[in-house]
Amino acid sequence: MCHFFPYCLLPEKSYLCRKFSNMAENPSQEPVKMPGKYELIAELSKFFPTENASTIVATGDDATVVEPDGNQVVAASKVFVENVHFDLTYFPLRHLGYKLSTIAFSDVLAMNASPSQLMVNIAVSDRFDLKMVHEILSGVTACCETVHADLAGLDLTTSPRELVVSMTAIGECEPARLCTRKGAAENELVCVSGDFAAAYTGLLLLEREKKVFEKNPGAQPDFSGKDYLLRRELKPEPRIDIIENLRREDILPTAMANVSEGLATAVMQICKASHKGCVLFEEKLPMTELTFVTLKDLDIVHTVAALNGGDDYELMFTIKQADFENIKKVENVSIIGYIKEESAGYHLITGDNVQVPLQAQGFRLP
Amino acid sequence: MCHFFPYCLLPEKSYLCRKFSNMAENPSQEPVKMPGKYELIAELSKFFPTENASTIVATGDDATVVEPDGNQVVAASKVFVENVHFDLTYFPLRHLGYKLSTIAFSDVLAMNASPSQLMVNIAVSDRFDLKMVHEILSGVTACCETVHADLAGLDLTTSPRELVVSMTAIGECEPARLCTRKGAAENELVCVSGDFAAAYTGLLLLEREKKVFEKNPGAQPDFSGKDYLLRRELKPEPRIDIIENLRREDILPTAMANVSEGLATAVMQICKASHKGCVLFEEKLPMTELTFVTLKDLDIVHTVAALNGGDDYELMFTIKQADFENIKKVENVSIIGYIKEESAGYHLITGDNVQVPLQAQGFRLP
Repeated sequence: MCHFFPYCLLPEKSYLCRKFSNMAENPSQEPVKMPGKYELIAELSKFFPTENASTIVATGDDATVVEPDGNQVVAASKVFVENVHFDLTYFPLRHLGYKLSTIAFSDVLAMNASPSQLMVNIAVSDRFDLKMVHEILSGVTACCETVHADLAGLDLTTSPRELVVSMTAIGECEPARLCTRKGAAENELVCVSGDFAAAYTGLLLLEREKKVFEKNPGAQPDFSGKDYLLRRELKPEPRIDIIENLRREDILPTAMANVSEGLATAVMQICKASHKGCVLFEEKLPMTELTFVTLKDLDIVHTVAALNGGDDYELMFTIKQADFENIKKVENVSIIGYIKEESAGYHLITGDNVQVPLQAQGFRLP
Repeated sequence: MCHFFPYCLLPEKSYLCRKFSNMAENPSQEPVKMPGKYELIAELSKFFPTENASTIVATGDDATVVEPDGNQVVAASKVFVENVHFDLTYFPLRHLGYKLSTIAFSDVLAMNASPSQLMVNIAVSDRFDLKMVHEILSGVTACCETVHADLAGLDLTTSPRELVVSMTAIGECEPARLCTRKGAAENELVCVSGDFAAAYTGLLLLEREKKVFEKNPGAQPDFSGKDYLLRRELKPEPRIDIIENLRREDILPTAMANVSEGLATAVMQICKASHKGCVLFEEKLPMTELTFVTLKDLDIVHTVAALNGGDDYELMFTIKQADFENIKKVENVSIIGYIKEESAGYHLITGDNVQVPLQAQGFRLP
């Protein structure tokens, strides 16, 4: 199904869930049929022992039950459709399971909560066999391990054509540590984790090679030196490290958002919810040299890619100025701007000191 | 889109969410586009004020936040794909929203929990306009009102062809009242709410008329006298009344399951989880006269339809014999059999006193 990487681009041991290896190496090539689906779900569920004390009922009943013990429960639900949200021409199924899980967990993390459970529904067409479902689930469980969450809900069903995956990530948060998008105040600092536009650049490379492949199906793409960009697109990581390190440094952000559609959308989500404005500094937007150079080769303005490219799944949050010294102790965080009064609007100060209004993909601006 | 019922089969006032009427009567005919989706979600969310104290963050942030205050949180997630789970030829969109919500809530109710929130994701193709999204959501909110749950999560995205809807229903339960499928004991009574095979019979009528319609697009079907069967298929009700009445009568079922794929699957789900066997009595299976007569006309064995038809969304539960007098006080509940030792297997005693093994759709039997 994936023509570029029959198995995996990344070394298997980095995320392969070995628990599946016996089943995966003995593929039944059996189409996923609805008769027998309960046996199949029960069989698959044996591979997902639960570990969290809050997981009371996992797979195999009518619903999932969570006992949060005084914490708030945070839930994020997503639906992903083939050829809209992913392209199996270049997306290995195991990466797909990992990435979709990361996306769902990112929304939980963006409330400053700790992921605890994941519920997965997969609707497959008759192009799929059992081995392919295993591949997706091996990516899902690898991501669950990364964030210490239990796979605590699994359903399989059919789809006429496109693969459809729905994910519901559940997490827990002490009420006093919950961070919504509301709460940013004037003069607070706008921080982000990681670097930007790498995933978008990886996607551009993959799409370019897909076109080459479509004309010449024998061609194998050469991505040498671009591993980081591909990894950001094919295997984004849930930033649980940031949530844990903020806690360690006793920093409570005033607002937080998942950066899924570029920096511009995220900062405007925080500003709109908080009734504030903001200014970001072009020179402060974190980007790797590889991303910068590759975008230049592709003739794409790198700042536009960072602001609007998307697929980063990094965290954006605002902190009080008093936390300025402490935030330096948290690795992989950059301060990229500050919050202003609402009437100031949303702006970027460019490298040559020009102020331009921010444009966000997900918003129709007034 | 729905050729049979351009608007609604059932009287509008019975479930039309009037809050939408202004928007629905002034259709923009605007395709649902991704640019502007956040404005659209924010606009739609204004129609869903939240009412439950446990709903801390509803729509408009990265995730939904629930504060269950000592209760367990019950979550059920489903994905529904057009032409697999529903056919828009005869399914009005408002009914669709209602039915899919009922299905999601049914899994929460089947844990003996009270629904509190619903998260909805809709992926639409360019066949859809804003008015059609409103129609779906008006059905969703009407069902939320039925069970006193908040619509507390909404995302819109695109699909290449088929309409895709994912639903995550959330509920709360005192830990001592939680009912899983495990826990049924020998000699306990098997109870069900409502009656069976009506939805399946309604589906058969709709499918039959669809074939007539495909040959002769001018034909309008005549369903006179069959309203109940169509309503069971097109607008099944979440059985929150049963949960509430069991509580009122101080009956705590020992096991419970959602009857979504017929009585045979449900009773086997309880028996397998509880490591027990069972016997059901054909003469005790509740069915309306209308269902019985219509199935006879269609030349379908009525017991097979009740055991394997599906789409009933009734509750099955087991109770101790000591609760026999109290269960009679709960309306719309029938006792249909009892639990036996595991080695007895799963059987039906027919009207002429013959014991036949139960066959379930969702299981491959040994």
